[in-house]
Amino acid sequence: MAQAQLKMKLKKVPRKSPAVPASKKAGPPPSKPEPRKIVRLTAADLAEKQREISVSEFFTKNRHLLGFDSPAKALLTTVKEAVDNALDACEEAGILPDILIEIQAISETRYRVAVQDNGPGIVKAQIPKIFGQLLYGSKFHRLRQSRGQQGIGISAAGMYGQLTTGKPITVISRVGANKPAHKFDIQIDTRRNAPVVTADDEVEWKPEHGTRVEIEIEATYKKGRHSVDGYVEQTAMANPHAAIAYVAPDGERLTMERVAAELPKPPLEIKPHPHGVELGILLKMLHETKARNLRAFLSGEFSRVSPAVAEEIARGASLSPNMTPQKAAREQAEALYNAVQATKLMAPPSNVLSPIGEELLLTGLKKQVEARFYAATTRSPSVYRGNPFLVEAALAYGADSLPADEPITLLRFANRVPLLYQQSACAVTKSVIQTNWKSYGIQQSRGALPSGPIILMVHIASVWVPFTSESKESVASYPQIAKEIRLALQDVGRKLGIFIRRGLREEDAEKKRSYIEKYIPHIGIALQEILGIDDKRKEKVCATLKDTLERSRQL
Amino acid sequence: MAQAQLKMKLKKVPRKSPAVPASKKAGPPPSKPEPRKIVRLTAADLAEKQREISVSEFFTKNRHLLGFDSPAKALLTTVKEAVDNALDACEEAGILPDILIEIQAISETRYRVAVQDNGPGIVKAQIPKIFGQLLYGSKFHRLRQSRGQQGIGISAAGMYGQLTTGKPITVISRVGANKPAHKFDIQIDTRRNAPVVTADDEVEWKPEHGTRVEIEIEATYKKGRHSVDGYVEQTAMANPHAAIAYVAPDGERLTMERVAAELPKPPLEIKPHPHGVELGILLKMLHETKARNLRAFLSGEFSRVSPAVAEEIARGASLSPNMTPQKAAREQAEALYNAVQATKLMAPPSNVLSPIGEELLLTGLKKQVEARFYAATTRSPSVYRGNPFLVEAALAYGADSLPADEPITLLRFANRVPLLYQQSACAVTKSVIQTNWKSYGIQQSRGALPSGPIILMVHIASVWVPFTSESKESVASYPQIAKEIRLALQDVGRKLGIFIRRGLREEDAEKKRSYIEKYIPHIGIALQEILGIDDKRKEKVCATLKDTLERSRQL
Repeated sequence: MAQAQLKMKLKKVPRKSPAVPASKKAGPPPSKPEPRKIVRLTAADLAEKQREISVSEFFTKNRHLLGFDSPAKALLTTVKEAVDNALDACEEAGILPDILIEIQAISETRYRVAVQDNGPGIVKAQIPKIFGQLLYGSKFHRLRQSRGQQGIGISAAGMYGQLTTGKPITVISRVGANKPAHKFDIQIDTRRNAPVVTADDEVEWKPEHGTRVEIEIEATYKKGRHSVDGYVEQTAMANPHAAIAYVAPDGERLTMERVAAELPKPPLEIKPHPHGVELGILLKMLHETKARNLRAFLSGEFSRVSPAVAEEIARGASLSPNMTPQKAAREQAEALYNAVQATKLMAPPSNVLSPIGEELLLTGLKKQVEARFYAATTRSPSVYRGNPFLVEAALAYGADSLPADEPITLLRFANRVPLLYQQSACAVTKSVIQTNWKSYGIQQSRGALPSGPIILMVHIASVWVPFTSESKESVASYPQIAKEIRLALQDVGRKLGIFIRRGLREEDAEKKRSYIEKYIPHIGIALQEILGIDDKRKEKVCATLKDTLERSRQL
Repeated sequence: MAQAQLKMKLKKVPRKSPAVPASKKAGPPPSKPEPRKIVRLTAADLAEKQREISVSEFFTKNRHLLGFDSPAKALLTTVKEAVDNALDACEEAGILPDILIEIQAISETRYRVAVQDNGPGIVKAQIPKIFGQLLYGSKFHRLRQSRGQQGIGISAAGMYGQLTTGKPITVISRVGANKPAHKFDIQIDTRRNAPVVTADDEVEWKPEHGTRVEIEIEATYKKGRHSVDGYVEQTAMANPHAAIAYVAPDGERLTMERVAAELPKPPLEIKPHPHGVELGILLKMLHETKARNLRAFLSGEFSRVSPAVAEEIARGASLSPNMTPQKAAREQAEALYNAVQATKLMAPPSNVLSPIGEELLLTGLKKQVEARFYAATTRSPSVYRGNPFLVEAALAYGADSLPADEPITLLRFANRVPLLYQQSACAVTKSVIQTNWKSYGIQQSRGALPSGPIILMVHIASVWVPFTSESKESVASYPQIAKEIRLALQDVGRKLGIFIRRGLREEDAEKKRSYIEKYIPHIGIALQEILGIDDKRKEKVCATLKDTLERSRQL
C-alpha cells in the first residue's frame, strides 16, 4: 500500500505542488548550483504520515532494547524480570524469599516459564496493569534501592510471549490465608498500551500468600554462564538470604540453599538531594508542590535542607522564604537553582543503601570456586547526580578450575541482580580494562581485560542505577561511578598484588632451596674425596652447609 | 513524606495486617526455618504506590538512554537529532540539502543550538507534536531507510533543553514562497507527554521553504573527534550530496562543500517480509486488516507474496484462502505462521536501500586523509528479521598523520549518520575485534582493536537499524548483521593484506639491493688487488656483477 502511494506521489507531486520550487536562493549556506531535483514529498504529504507511536508499539519493534534480541537471551530475560519482581516483593514485605523457577519445554523453540514467590501477593485490581501495561509500577517514582525501577520488565516479558506465541501471561496471586487466590490471563493491547483481561477466576492455590507468573515464549535453552543456570547461581551469590529452587527444561533440579539467615538491612526511600535536581525538575516541583511557601517547599521536598538552610538558599536567590512556590517564574526558578548549587549542603544520606557486604561476598565466592586467595571490599557510599550509590568488589585467584591464560571471569551485579549481557558496554568492564593490573602481577594486553585464573565480582548498589538500556544489562559510565569502581578494583587489586608478590618471593626461595638441596650432596662427595673424611663427618658437613646457606638465603 | 510513611508502616503493620503471617509452610521450595521477619509492606500498601509512568517522565529520569548523559555529549546529541531530521526532510522532498549549524555560547555551561535546513518545511498543525511529544513521527510505522526512525530524537532534545535551562524549543518553518513562516515556542508537559505552545506567531523569514530549530541547553563545548566538529566532518563524509555550514561557539566557520552533485538514489518504502513477522504481529495484522479474505491479506500486506503463493501458504496451514482474516483464532494464526515459515519465498527486495557506494566512500576518505593505500567495498543486501540491510567498509592505510602503534581509528555509520559514542557496545566494533587482522599483516592484541596507521569506515544501511539504545549510538549484534560486517571487513582487509605483503616484499628487495650496492665495490677492490686489473676494468666487472645479482634476485 505504502509503496503504491509513494510511486503515485513520484509522478504527480512535482507538477502539482508549488511548495517546493527549485529555488537556488533558499537555504542558508552558499553552495554550488543544484543540477537536478527530484521533488517527491511536500510538507503536506509528510504531515499526512505523522502519527503517535504507543510505547508498546515502540518496544515491540525495538524488543532488543528490552533484552529480547535472541531466543536464548529471551529465556533469561523473562526469568530475570520475574525473579527481580519476586525478590523485591518479598523484601518489601519483610519476608525471607523462597523462589521457585520452573522452565518447561513445549518444543525445541518454545518454553513455558513459571516463577513463583512467597511474597505478599498483589491486590486483585492492580494485577492487569502491572502485567499488561508498559511503564506502570511502584518503583519509578521513588528513590530507593530495588531490582526493578522502570515499570517495564515483567509486562515486556508478557508482551514478548504474546508476540512470539500469541498466548497471554498467566498470573496467580494471593494476599493472605483468609483471602482467595486469583488467576488472570492478560494480554496487551499494544496500540493503546493497555491490559486486556481474557480470563479472571478465583482458584484453589496452596500457598497462603505469594504470586506465580507463567509466560509461554519462543526461546532456546542453553547451559553455561550466560544461561538461566548461570543466572540462578549468580543470583544466589548476590542474594544469600534467598532460597531458590530451579527446575530446568531437562528436568534437572537445582536448589540454592539460604546462606544468610536474615534479610539484608532494608534500603530506605529518600527524597531527592538539591544538588542532583535539574532546573527543569525544580521548576516542575515548584509548580506542583503543596507547600505554602518557599521555605516549606525546600525543607519539605528535599533531603539535607533544614528550614534554616532553606532561608539561606532563598536569600542567595534574592527571593522571599515566604513566596508562593507555585507562582515562581522561570527566572526565579533559575535564581533559586543557582543559589542551591552555590550552597554547601551535606551529602545525601548514605545509610539508605543495602550492600552485600565483604563477608557475604567472600562466602558467595568461596561457594563458587576453591581458590588460593580471596579479597573483598565494600566502599563507602558516594553520589552521582544527587543519587547515593556504592561499589563492592571481590575476587578469587588461582583456582585449578580457572584457565591461567584466558581473560578473567568478570561477574557484574547491580542492586543484587547479575548482569549477563552487554559486558563490553558496561562501566564496570571499562573500569576493569582501564585499571593497571600489571602493577598487581596480572597479565593484561592494552585495551583488554586482564588474563589469569581470576573470578572478579563487582556490585553497584544505588537508589537509581543508570543502565545503558531498558534491558538493564550494563551500567552507564557516569564519571563518579567509574571512579568508585576503579577505587574498589584497586583495593582488591592491591591485596592480590601483595599475595602474588609474596608468592613470587616464595617461589624464588623455593627455587634457591631446591638448588641447595640438589648440589650440597655433590659438594659432600667432593669434600670426602679431597679431605678423606668418613661418611658420618660428610653428612655433618652437608647438614651444616645446608643450614648456613638456608640462613644466608633468608637474610 | 515517603520516608515518614515508611517509618509509620514499620511500626504499625505487623500488628494490624493478617495478610502476611510468618508462615513456615508458604512458598514453594523447601528451606531452612526462617529466624526473623521484619514485616513491612502488605499487598495493599504496595498497591497504593502503583502508578502510571509517562514516557516523558521515563526518559527525563533516563536521559542517558537518549544520549544526554554528559554536557559534552548533550551538545552533540542535540545537533545530531536536528541535522538527522533536516537531511531526512530534504531528501524526502527531493531537495539537495543545505544545512546550517550555529552554536552560540551563552555561558561556559550553556549554549543555544540552531539548525536550519532548506527542506520542504512542516505544516503548521504538526509542529507542536513533532517537537513537543515523545514517540510521535512519520518514520516509525514504515520500513524505509532514513536517519530518524523512532519519533523521539528532536523532542527529546527539546525536553533536555527544558530540563536544564527551563526554556522552550523554538521552531520556525515555512512550506513555500507564497506561504507565511510560522514561529513556535514549545514546551513539553512531561506528565502527559504532550506539547504546550507558549508562543505562536507569523514572522518574516527570508528562506522560501525550510525549517529552523533552536534549543538552549546546558552543555560544554569541546574540540576533537567525539565533538560537534568531528560529527560535522564525518556527516559530510557520509553525505557527499549535502552542503553543511557550521559556526562553532568560538565563531570559527567550517564549510563542507557539496561533493556529489546529485541526491543519492532515493530509498524505497517496503512492506514487511513474511519471514520476519512474529506470530503476535501476524495475529494483530489479521485482526486489523481491511482485506476481505486471507488470500488478499497475504498478497496485499506482505512483500514477495503473490496470490498464488498466498494460496499455497493457506493450503499449508489447512485454511481456506477465502476465510475472513479478522476472525482468525490464535491457533489458526499459528498454523498460518508455521505455513509461512515453511514456504520458500523470495528474499525481500534489495534495491530499496541507498548505500554511499565505493566511489564516494573513497572520495570521502581521501578528503579526510592522504594515505598510501585505500580500499572500499559495498556488499550486496542481506536480511535480518525480514529487514533488508547492507554493509559497506572502506579503509585508508599508511598516512603520516596516523600513529603506527595506536589502535586504528574506527568510524561507524548507520544510515549515513556517524556514530560517535558507545563504540565498544557496537556490532561493528565487535566484528572488527573478532576479525583476524594479523593475517592481513596488521598488529592486533587478543580481544582488542588492531593497531596501525589505519582509518576504517563501516556503514550499515537498513530499512530499520536495530540500535542498542534510543540514543542510536551503536548497532545491536544480530548474527546476520555481524556476519555481513565481518565479510565486508575481510574484503577490505584482504586488499590491504596484498598491499602490505607487496610492500614487505619490496622492502625485502630494497634491503637486498642495498647489500649488493654496499659490498660490490669492496669485491671490486679485492679483485683489482688479486688480478691486477685497471680501474676501468674493475668498474666494468662491478657493473656486470651488480647486474647479474640484480637479475638473480628478481627470479
